[in-house]
This record gives sequence, structure tokens and C-alpha cells, in this order.
Amino acid sequence: MRDDETEIRELVATWMAATKSGDIDTVLSLMTDDVVFRVPGHPPRRKADFERTARAQAGADAPRFEGSSEIQEIEVHGERAYMWTKLTVVVTPPGGAAPITRAGHTLTILRKENGKWRLARDANLLATVPSS
Amino acid sequence: MRDDETEIRELVATWMAATKSGDIDTVLSLMTDDVVFRVPGHPPRRKADFERTARAQAGADAPRFEGSSEIQEIEVHGERAYMWTKLTVVVTPPGGAAPITRAGHTLTILRKENGKWRLARDANLLATVPSS
Repeated sequence: MRDDETEIRELVATWMAATKSGDIDTVLSLMTDDVVFRVPGHPPRRKADFERTARAQAGADAPRFEGSSEIQEIEVHGERAYMWTKLTVVVTPPGGAAPITRAGHTLTILRKENGKWRLARDANLLATVPSS
Repeated sequence: MRDDETEIRELVATWMAATKSGDIDTVLSLMTDDVVFRVPGHPPRRKADFERTARAQAGADAPRFEGSSEIQEIEVHGERAYMWTKLTVVVTPPGGAAPITRAGHTLTILRKENGKWRLARDANLLATVPSS
């Protein structure tokens, strides 16, 4: 039996896999049209910003993204949910530059729309991990 | 008529005023017992951690906190709500050291318990503002 929490876990797994494989359309389908992403020290990123950046980075010399996400808490309340995840992202720039690792937590609001969970608000607390 | 959004705005105003005046008991009464605060690069802070830090800083040579909070979005869904705020906090250390300004956004989950809204989860995206 699939419940809301299972569906949200599947959304996160699909997001991570689609990000890794560069499947931008799938990632965009997992967020609401009014999604807001925030990181410290930068303006908010909305869906159009997300898509523009993702498409600009796509192609042969795209940076490689490898991530792992560990869900630490999900609370579902009707058609809304929040979730803490522990996230590690390793970005490998093209051309042999050293990979950059960012790690930390995200607090995410999810919304169920037409029976499907989507990411609606995201606060990204990741910090760069000093390379050893 | 008081509605949920008004009550949440009052909670924020009370929080800011109590923080400024050092009224630790009032601030503690505005959060759930299982509250979790996160900032980038640090372990989570829970209610007991919050209280310990606040009481240790209290007294004659306490740092002064001045803050302003601008609520940018509140969505209430039953007995849960989320809120984006734009927050600026100026911390003035004792002994004449230069004040430190931190500014940015917070994403907060609120929970209504026994008819009263309380802060339950908080992601703090504030960054230090370089002094000019």
C-alpha cells in the first residue's frame, strides 16, 4: 500500500536520480509552479530561474552532480507536508577542476496537487565542506 | 475577529519584543517542546539548548539583540502553518565591541497546540552582513 510518506520518499529518490542524469523535465515536474528555493545570501530562485540555470548548464561540458539525501523527518498534514533532509551534493566542474562538496540540511514544504506530491518551498542550509 | 494568520503575526511580534527585552520565559512559551532550529554548518538546536544559551547570555553583560522581522508569506493549513520571514538581527556584544548584523530569511513550521500557535521547526538562512 502506498501512503503519502512513501510517495514523498519516492519524489526525493526520483529528484536525485533525475538531477544526476540531467533529466530537467522530470525535475521540473516534481515542483509546484509557484515554488520558491532559498539559500543564504542570494535572492530567491523560482521555477523559471531553476529551469534557465539547469538548461544553461546542460550539454557535453555540463558540471556533474552527485548527491545523496537522507530523509530525517516527514510530517504529513492533509495535503501539505514538511520534510527535513540531510543532503550532500558533489559538483564536479568540467575540465578537470576539483569537485566541490556541499553538505547540510534542507527544510522543504510539499503540497499535494491533483493527487501528486510536489515540492513547494525549500530552505537550503548547505555549507561548503573544506577539501582536505 | 482574530484569525490564525493574525495570531501568527502576533506570535512573531511577541517573539521579537521578548528577545529584545531578555524575557526568556516568554520566548520559550512560543515554541513547541520538540522544536528544532537549524542554521548552516552547526548541529540542530532544541528547546533545552535554546534555553541554556539564552540563560547563559542573560545578565548585566549580556549581548544586546535588536531585530526586525518582515513576514513575507504565511500559509495556514488546519493546525499547521509555514511562514517565510525576512529577518535582520543586530547583536551588540558587551564591552564596546562592534555590533554584528546578520540578515536573510527564515522558513518556519508552526503548529497549533491547545488553540495556541507555536514555532515547531525553523531553518535560518541568515548570513553576516559585512560592516562597511
